[in-house]
Amino acid sequence: MVDAGKKGTIYQSVLPASDSFIRRHIGPGPQEQAAMLQELGLQSIEELIDLSVPENIRINHQLNLQEPYDERKLSLRIQKIAEENRIFRSYIGMGYADCVVPKCIRRGLFENAGWITQYTPYQPEISQGRLESLLNYQTMVSDLTGLPMANSSLLDEGTAAAEAMSLCFRDKHKNKFLVDEQCHPQTIAVVKTRARLREWKLTYLLFRYYFDFTGGDVAGVLIQYPDTNGAVYDIEQLIQKIHENGALAVCATDLLALTLLKPPGEFGADICIGNSQRFGVPLGYGGPHAAFFATRADMARLIPGRVIGVSKDTENNPAFRLALQTREQHIRRAKATSNICTAQALLANMSAMYAVYHGPKGLKEIATRVHNAALLLAEGLLRAGHQIPVEPFFDTVKVICNMHIRRNSTEIMKRATKCKLNFRKFDETTVSVTLDETVDENDLNDLLWVFGLYYNVETLSRKIEAEGRKVISDVVGGRFERASPYLQHPVFNTYHTETDIVRYMKHLENKDLSLVHSMIPLGSCTMKLNGSTELEPSSMPEFSELHPFIPSEQAQGYRTLFKELETDLCEITGFDNVCFQPNSGAQGEYTGLRTIKQYYEYHGQGHRNVCLIPKSAHGTNPASATMAGLKVEEVAVDQKTGYIDMLDLKKKAEKFKDTLISFMVTYPSTYGIFEENIREMCDLIHDFGGQVYMDGANMNAQVGICRPGDFGADVSHLNLHKTFCIPHGGGGPGMGPIGVKRHLTPFLPTHPITPPATEGELHPFGVISSSAWGSSAILPISWAYIKLMGRKGLKHASEIAILNANYMAKRLSKYYNLQFTGENGYVAHEFILDVTPFKSVKIEAIDIAKRLQDYGFHAPTMSWPVVGALMIEPTECESKMEMDRYCDALIQIRQEIMNIEEGKMDPVVNPLKMAPHTQQIVSSSNWNRPYSREQAVYPAPWLRYKKFWPSCARVNDEYGDRNLVCTCPPMDSYESKAPEVIADKAKMTA
Amino acid sequence: MVDAGKKGTIYQSVLPASDSFIRRHIGPGPQEQAAMLQELGLQSIEELIDLSVPENIRINHQLNLQEPYDERKLSLRIQKIAEENRIFRSYIGMGYADCVVPKCIRRGLFENAGWITQYTPYQPEISQGRLESLLNYQTMVSDLTGLPMANSSLLDEGTAAAEAMSLCFRDKHKNKFLVDEQCHPQTIAVVKTRARLREWKLTYLLFRYYFDFTGGDVAGVLIQYPDTNGAVYDIEQLIQKIHENGALAVCATDLLALTLLKPPGEFGADICIGNSQRFGVPLGYGGPHAAFFATRADMARLIPGRVIGVSKDTENNPAFRLALQTREQHIRRAKATSNICTAQALLANMSAMYAVYHGPKGLKEIATRVHNAALLLAEGLLRAGHQIPVEPFFDTVKVICNMHIRRNSTEIMKRATKCKLNFRKFDETTVSVTLDETVDENDLNDLLWVFGLYYNVETLSRKIEAEGRKVISDVVGGRFERASPYLQHPVFNTYHTETDIVRYMKHLENKDLSLVHSMIPLGSCTMKLNGSTELEPSSMPEFSELHPFIPSEQAQGYRTLFKELETDLCEITGFDNVCFQPNSGAQGEYTGLRTIKQYYEYHGQGHRNVCLIPKSAHGTNPASATMAGLKVEEVAVDQKTGYIDMLDLKKKAEKFKDTLISFMVTYPSTYGIFEENIREMCDLIHDFGGQVYMDGANMNAQVGICRPGDFGADVSHLNLHKTFCIPHGGGGPGMGPIGVKRHLTPFLPTHPITPPATEGELHPFGVISSSAWGSSAILPISWAYIKLMGRKGLKHASEIAILNANYMAKRLSKYYNLQFTGENGYVAHEFILDVTPFKSVKIEAIDIAKRLQDYGFHAPTMSWPVVGALMIEPTECESKMEMDRYCDALIQIRQEIMNIEEGKMDPVVNPLKMAPHTQQIVSSSNWNRPYSREQAVYPAPWLRYKKFWPSCARVNDEYGDRNLVCTCPPMDSYESKAPEVIADKAKMTA
Ligand SMILES: Cc1ncc(COP(=O)(O)O)c(C=O)c1O
Ligand SMILES: Cc1ncc(COP(=O)(O)O)c(C=O)c1O
Ligand SMILES: O=C([O-])O
Repeated sequence: MVDAGKKGTIYQSVLPASDSFIRRHIGPGPQEQAAMLQELGLQSIEELIDLSVPENIRINHQLNLQEPYDERKLSLRIQKIAEENRIFRSYIGMGYADCVVPKCIRRGLFENAGWITQYTPYQPEISQGRLESLLNYQTMVSDLTGLPMANSSLLDEGTAAAEAMSLCFRDKHKNKFLVDEQCHPQTIAVVKTRARLREWKLTYLLFRYYFDFTGGDVAGVLIQYPDTNGAVYDIEQLIQKIHENGALAVCATDLLALTLLKPPGEFGADICIGNSQRFGVPLGYGGPHAAFFATRADMARLIPGRVIGVSKDTENNPAFRLALQTREQHIRRAKATSNICTAQALLANMSAMYAVYHGPKGLKEIATRVHNAALLLAEGLLRAGHQIPVEPFFDTVKVICNMHIRRNSTEIMKRATKCKLNFRKFDETTVSVTLDETVDENDLNDLLWVFGLYYNVETLSRKIEAEGRKVISDVVGGRFERASPYLQHPVFNTYHTETDIVRYMKHLENKDLSLVHSMIPLGSCTMKLNGSTELEPSSMPEFSELHPFIPSEQAQGYRTLFKELETDLCEITGFDNVCFQPNSGAQGEYTGLRTIKQYYEYHGQGHRNVCLIPKSAHGTNPASATMAGLKVEEVAVDQKTGYIDMLDLKKKAEKFKDTLISFMVTYPSTYGIFEENIREMCDLIHDFGGQVYMDGANMNAQVGICRPGDFGADVSHLNLHKTFCIPHGGGGPGMGPIGVKRHLTPFLPTHPITPPATEGELHPFGVISSSAWGSSAILPISWAYIKLMGRKGLKHASEIAILNANYMAKRLSKYYNLQFTGENGYVAHEFILDVTPFKSVKIEAIDIAKRLQDYGFHAPTMSWPVVGALMIEPTECESKMEMDRYCDALIQIRQEIMNIEEGKMDPVVNPLKMAPHTQQIVSSSNWNRPYSREQAVYPAPWLRYKKFWPSCARVNDEYGDRNLVCTCPPMDSYESKAPEVIADKAKMTA
Repeated sequence: MVDAGKKGTIYQSVLPASDSFIRRHIGPGPQEQAAMLQELGLQSIEELIDLSVPENIRINHQLNLQEPYDERKLSLRIQKIAEENRIFRSYIGMGYADCVVPKCIRRGLFENAGWITQYTPYQPEISQGRLESLLNYQTMVSDLTGLPMANSSLLDEGTAAAEAMSLCFRDKHKNKFLVDEQCHPQTIAVVKTRARLREWKLTYLLFRYYFDFTGGDVAGVLIQYPDTNGAVYDIEQLIQKIHENGALAVCATDLLALTLLKPPGEFGADICIGNSQRFGVPLGYGGPHAAFFATRADMARLIPGRVIGVSKDTENNPAFRLALQTREQHIRRAKATSNICTAQALLANMSAMYAVYHGPKGLKEIATRVHNAALLLAEGLLRAGHQIPVEPFFDTVKVICNMHIRRNSTEIMKRATKCKLNFRKFDETTVSVTLDETVDENDLNDLLWVFGLYYNVETLSRKIEAEGRKVISDVVGGRFERASPYLQHPVFNTYHTETDIVRYMKHLENKDLSLVHSMIPLGSCTMKLNGSTELEPSSMPEFSELHPFIPSEQAQGYRTLFKELETDLCEITGFDNVCFQPNSGAQGEYTGLRTIKQYYEYHGQGHRNVCLIPKSAHGTNPASATMAGLKVEEVAVDQKTGYIDMLDLKKKAEKFKDTLISFMVTYPSTYGIFEENIREMCDLIHDFGGQVYMDGANMNAQVGICRPGDFGADVSHLNLHKTFCIPHGGGGPGMGPIGVKRHLTPFLPTHPITPPATEGELHPFGVISSSAWGSSAILPISWAYIKLMGRKGLKHASEIAILNANYMAKRLSKYYNLQFTGENGYVAHEFILDVTPFKSVKIEAIDIAKRLQDYGFHAPTMSWPVVGALMIEPTECESKMEMDRYCDALIQIRQEIMNIEEGKMDPVVNPLKMAPHTQQIVSSSNWNRPYSREQAVYPAPWLRYKKFWPSCARVNDEYGDRNLVCTCPPMDSYESKAPEVIADKAKMTA
C-alpha cells in the first residue's frame, strides 16, 4: 500500500534510501542504546552530549555535508571518479617502479581484514604472526643492503633519509650534512626541509666528487646507489673518503638492484635507506609504501621507528616482540631523535611476503630480466641515433635524444603520449626510461618505436646475434656484481608455491588478534570498523597503478577526490584548507608546527620558538616540536582532575609571550575529557601572540558536535587511520593531513615535482613527504566513510562513541577507580582506569593486560597517558553485547584480584601473574598451579564457544633487549622441533 | 650480460616469460621431485609414466594449446574479454533478480579462501563453521516457505522442480505429473526433460484452473507463486483440490516475496522449491546460485541432496553434521531417487549470511521497497495509457502496451536499449518488468520515460498525492499478507553491523579445516589449488552482473570464453564438442547418458536401455542411469586386483547385445589404477553396438598424457571443480560439462530461451539446467587454469599428481596394505589403503580418520569405493614436505594401533577411539585416560608450531538421525552457556 498522505512525496516515503551504511557502522541498535542510557540514568543522547560536551563549543547546526550515500551508490560514484584517472605505462622511475603484486598476496593479505585491522603489536603474545612477518622484512632489508640491523619500516624514502641525517647528528660536535645532488630530487627536498631550523647547517648539495670535508664538521653524507640518473658507480672510494673524514655514509638504494649489485653495506655504508615499494606494493600515486632503514650493529639502539626483536617467553620458547621500546618518543619525548610512531607495517608485510614468495632465486631472476631489458633497450636507442650518457646502469636508461633525424624529444614525447607512456623528462633533449618487473616484449617494441627505431626488438636481437656480439654489461658479471648470498633463511626458501604461501599467510594471520575477533579498545587509537566498501577503491587499478609524478591530467580522478575530501574535512573541522602531504599523525604535527613557524618568519617574527605542551601530551607532540626546532615548555596538568592547569598555562604564556609560538593541545584531552575551558585556553594563547596546534587524534569525539576551527585551533592534524577509518594495518599505513585556518594556507608544504596548483601567493616552508599527497591510495577510504555516513551519520557516530565510553565507564567504575571525568562526571569517548591500588598485591596493569588475553581480548592502552593505568576507547562500532563481554571480563579479573587481596589465591602463582595461558601450557601433563586449568583458560562461559588463544606465554622484554636479535635467527636456535621441518624443506628446495 | 650466442633470439633468452604460474601451482620443486623419484627407485618422471600409464593409450605429441600465460598477462586478457560483455539493467525476472551483494560478505566469504576451499563437510568435527551456516540456510528456507524441513541447496530451480517431481513419484501407483503453464518456461523445460524416459507419463502443461484429476493417477502438481507473470493468486483452493485428489502440491516460489506474502507452506503446499540467488548472490549469467527445497516433516527422509542436522558429540555438546547420509546415491546407487552429489554450498552460505546480515526486519524492508516501486511503476504505466493485465503482483509488472499513441512495443524496446535496459518480452505488445532490490528513483524515471510517460516519478507521486489517493495493493495489507513471523532465531537478529557480521564469518571460518590449513587428500575429489588469479574474474561485474536471458550481443565476452574453453577442453580430452549446461559431475553423467539415448532414438534404436556399470563405480553413475530411464547391470570387479572383470564384461555385453546402450567406466579406475585394457573394453562395447561413457572425475591423472576421446570414450563429463580448479566451496559450486564425439553433438541439450547458435541439424533431447551454460560465472576459473599452465604445465601437473601419489603410496605401503596397483606395481593419482586388518583390535577407518584430525589433517575418502578403506589423492599441488607430514601422521597412527595390538594401550580408551580431542577436553581438570594429554593433542612435534583444533568431539551420527533437527534449534537446547549471550543480544535488538 502506497500511502500518499504521509510526509514528503510518495517516492520519498515508499522508496527510502536502500540499505543504510550508518546502521552497519554503528554498533548498538536502538534498544541497546536505550539500555545504555538507562544504565547512565539519562533520558536521551542529547542529554548525554549536553552533560559531557561544553556548551560554548557545541555547534548548533548540522554540518553542511550530503545525505548519506548507500553502499551501492558509493561504489558507482567512486567508479566514475576512478575513470577520470588515466593509466599510462610509467617509466618515470625516481624510486617508484611498477611491479606485479602477486594476486594471492593481494587477496590473502592486503584485502584481508585479518591482516589489516590489527594495531601495532604492543601485545606480542597475540601478535606473533605479524611480528614474524615484520622480522622477515627486517631480515630481507638487512640481507639485501648488507647491514646487520634494520627497522620494520618508515613512512617513505624521503623521511627515511631525513631520519638518517638526524641519526648522523647524534654527534653534537658536527653540524654539516652533505647531500649528493644525484639523489632523487624529492629526497633532497625532504632532507633540506628537515635540516632547516635545527642547529644543523643547511644541507650541502654537491656533486659527489666535489664533497668538501675541510672543517671537520661533517656529520654525514647522503649518496644514492644506483643514483637518480640510473648510474651504478664506485661508492667504495667515496665511502672511504667519508669515513676518513669522520662522517657517516648514508646510502639511498634500491632493493631489487641489490639482488645483483654488491650492496652498500659491503662497501662500508653506515646506513642504507630506500623504498621497498617495488617489492610487491602498488604504486598508489605515491603511497602507501614501506621505506626501509638499515644500519651497523653498533648503531642498533639509535634506529628510528619500530624494531622487531627475538626474545623468549616464560616457557623458554622463542618469541617475537617490539624491541627497544624505550627509544621511542612516547618515552623520550622532547629528547627523542625522531617523532615516528605509525609507520607502514602493512606494506612492509606485503613486501616481506613478496620476498618470501619469490625467494632469492626468484628475485634475482626478476632483477636480471629487468636489467637485460634495459640493456636491450639501450642497444636499440643507440642504433636509433641517440646517446646513452650514463653507464653502467641497472634499470634506468638515460637518453640524450638525437635532435636531428626528426627524432627530437618533442616528437618522442608526442609518440609516448600516443602509446600511453610516461618518461622522466630532464630537459628538452634528455629523458630517462626506468624499466620494471612488468616489462615485456610489447613494451620494448613500443619504446623502440617511440624513440624512432624502425625495427622491433626481435629484429634488434637478431641483428646483435648476426654480429656475433654480446651486449656486455659492467653491472652483472662486472666489478659491481654481488658475490654474497642473501635470503638464505628457510623462510625465504620454503613458500614458493601459491598453496604454501597461502597457508603461511593464514598461519600468521590466525596468530594475531585483530578486529575480526573482538574489540580492541585502545585508548587514543580509535580502532573502529574498516568497511569493505570503504576499502575497495584502494584495490582499483585506476587508483593503485598511478606513478606519483605523472602529469596532472592523468590524475584528474585523484584531484576530484582530494578536493571533495578537503571540502568535507574543512566542513567537519572548521578549517579553511587541508594539506594531504603528511603520512602520519606525527608527521602532521611536524608539518603543522613548521607551517606556523613559516607564517611567523614571513611576518617578521621568526624568533618565536617556544612551544607550550601539557605534560599529558602524546610523546609525538614534544618530539615533533623539537624536530621543528622549537623549545618545548611543559604545562602542568592537575593530577587529580586531569585538567590542564590554567594558572600554569597563563603563567607560561605570559612568561614566554615574546617567544611563544604555539600551544599544542589534544582535544578532548588525552585523558578523555572535554575540558570546559578549551575556548579560554585558545583565546589566551592568541592573546599572547601564539597559535594553537590541536592534536586531532581524538577527533572521533567531536565530528558533528564541535569544530576545532571554531573554538580556537589554528591548525590540527587528523589521524585518518583513527577517526576516518583507514585500517591501522598493524602499525600503519596512516595519513595525518592537517587542516589550517586561512592565514596559514600560503605556508603549507609544496613539492618539487608536483607542486599544488597555485592559488594566490604561496610561501611554502618546504617539503614533508616524498610524494605530494602522501599515501594517496588510501584517501578514498576516508572519503568513502564521510560520504557513507553523511552529516547525520557522522554526528551520530560521535554521539555513540561518547555513549559507549560512558556506558563502559559507568559499569566499570563500580569495580575500578575511574580516574578522570569532566565537570558533570562524564567522560568523552575514552576513559582511564587507575589500577595502582592493586600494587599492594603486586598486580600491575600489565598483569591485567595479559589476563585479558585469556578472555580473548586485547588490552586497553597501558603505557600512556598515565603509566600503568588502562585507557579504554570502545568507539561507536562496538555493540553493547561486545562491550558487556569486555566489562564482564574486567569485572571478573577484579574478582580474581580480590581473591589475592583476600588471601584466597596465591600472591605469586595466580591467573594474573601467570597470564596469558597457552594451549600448550594448559594441555601439559604437569599442572601444579593453585588454580584449575579451567580457571586459567575458560574463566568466562562464552570462551567455550569462542576462544582466541595467545600463541606464546608472556614474553620476556628485558631478555630480548639484552640479547638483541633483529633478523630471523638461525633455525637451530629454536627449541621447538617444528621449524626443523621447514628447514628440511629449505634444504630440499635450495 | 646479454649473450647472443644462446638458443633462440636474444629477447627469448634474456626476457623469458616473467613469473611462471606453473611453479606456483605445482607443489614439489625440482629437488623434491628428485628425492621422490629416488624413493621410488626411478630415474625420471618419464620412467614413472611409462610404468604407470599403459603405452597403448599414451599420446606421443604435445597438446595443441598455447604457451603458458603469466598471471599478469592472463589478467589483462580476461579484462579484454570481460569488456566484450555489456552490462544492461535487467528487468527480465524469471527467477533471477539483481541484488546488492554486501561487500563485506563478498570479501569475507566469497573471495576468502578460508570459506571456499573446503570439501563437503563429511568430517563434522572440523566443519562446524560451515555446517552452522548451512543450517542457517535451511532455517531461512524453512521459515520463509512455511515448511519444517529444508535441504542445504540444490543445483538450480529447474532441477529442484524435477527433484520434487521425482519425490512425488515415490508413490509407484501414480504416473502423472501436472505442471501449471504459468511456471517459468525454463523450469517447465527441465521438468519435461526429466519426465521423459521414465515410467512417468509426460508432464501435463495446463492452465491451473483446468487441471484434470480424473483417473486418480496424478502423483503431483507443480505450481508457481507468484507465477511467471508476476501474479499473486489464491493457491489455497488449488492446493486443496490437489490434496483432495491424492496428489502432492509442489510450489515454486520466491523467498523475497515470502517476507510479505503468506507462504505456500501455510496454504498447505507439500514441497517448495526455488532459487535463493536474489539473497545476495550475483546473477553470474546464470549461476552459480543455490536452489532450495523444503518439505513437510514426514517427508524429511525423502529430501534429495544434503541435509544438515543437529546432533551431539561424545561430550554431549550440540554439534552439527550431515544428516541422513544413507539416503544418498553413494549408498543407494541405482535405487536412489536422485543423483545429486555436489550442490551449491558456497552460494547457500552467501544467501544465508545475507539473511543473517539483514535479519527479518531488513529483509522485509527490502521487499517492501521493491513492491512499492512496482506499484508506483504500474501507476505510471497506467497513466501512460498502457494496460496492466496481471494483478495483484509483488515485483513484476506485466504490461500490454498501448499500440496507439506511438508508444508501441517496438518504440519502447528501442528506448529501452538506449537506456541500457532489458525487459522480458512476451510478444509484440506484451512485456514485463521485474524490479529488484537495486531499484532507485533514477531507474523508475528511466522506466517511465521508456514507456512514454512525460513526467517523472516525483511528479507522478505528487499527482497521486494531489488526488488524495492511495495506491492500494492487494498484496501487502490484503488477503495475501503474511501474518506469521520468520527468522526469529537469535542468529538472524544479532549480526546486523558490519563489525558483527565480519566477526561471525571469521568465527565460522576458523572452525573449518580448509586448503588454507593443510592438505585435503580426498581420493576422487582432487582438492587442489584454487589460484587467486583464476578466481578473480568471477568477481568482475562484467561477468557477475549479467542476467542469463539477455540478448546474446550483450554477452559476447562470455561467448568468447565458452568457445576458447570448449576448444581447449576438446584438445585436452580428444572430444569434438563440449556442452556447458550440467552444473555438476552427476548432472554431466545424466546429460551424457541422455545424449546417447537420444542418438539411438534418432537412429531407430530407441529400445537400447541396458547400461553396464562396474560394481566399483561412484554411486552417481547408477543413480544417473536410473534417472535416464536405463536398466543398470553391474559388472564384476576383481576384489584382489581392483580390475574390471573382463570376462564378466564380455559376458554381459554379449548377453545384452541387443539392448546394450552404454558402458559407464571411470578412468583411471575408481581404485586409482590405469587399467591396461581400457582400449580393449571400449572396443568391446563398440563391437556390441553400445557407447562408452567415461566418468571424468579422475581426469587429473590424464591431462596431457592420454585422451579419453582417443582411446574409446564417446562421452565424458569433466568435473571442473576437481581437475580444473573451481573451488569446491564446501559442497559446491561445481560444473560438469560433457565432452562428446562428433556423432553425439546434434543430440546435446538445448535451452528454451537462449538456445545454442545452430550449426547443422540439431536433435536435442531436452533441457538439463535452468540456464543454458550452467554456472557460467565460474567458467573463467577453468579457462584461466588452462591458459596459465599451457600445454607444458598441464602435462606436468598430471605427471606430478601421479608422482605424488606413488611417493605417498610407497612410503605408506611399508606400514599399511596398499590395496591395488597396476601391473607394474604403480598407482595412478590416488591409492587405497586397506585398514581391515585392524578390525582385530576394533580399529576402523573412522577411528583413523578422527585421529588424523588430532594431527591437523583432513581424513582421506573413507566410505567409497571400498567401504572402510582410505583413499588418498594428494594432487600435484602438495609439496613433499606436506605429504611427508601426512605420511608421518599416518605412520605414527599405525604405531598407535600397534600399541593396542601389542597390549601396550587400552583397547577401548585409546587415542584413536577417543579422537578427536578438543581444547576443552584436553584442558579439563579431569583426565583419567591411559595416555597423556600430550599424546592426545601433540602427537607430532610440528603440532606445537601449527595446530588445527577440531571444534567438537566425535559427533554421534545415530543420535542425530534418530532425533532429526534440521533448523536452528531453540537456544535453550544448547548446554553451553555462550549462546545465551547471543540470545540476550537478540532480545535487545528484536
Ligand atoms: C594523541 C595522539 N597524538 C599523536 C599520535 C601520533 O599519530 P601517528 O601514530 O599517526 O603518528 C597519536 C597516536 O597514537 C596519538 O594518540
Ligand atoms: C568418480 C566420481 N564420479 C562422479 C562424481 C560426482 O560428481 P559431482 O559431485 O560433481 O556431482 C564424483 C564426485 O566426487 C566422483 O568422484
Ligand atoms: O562427493 C563424493 O561423493 O565423493
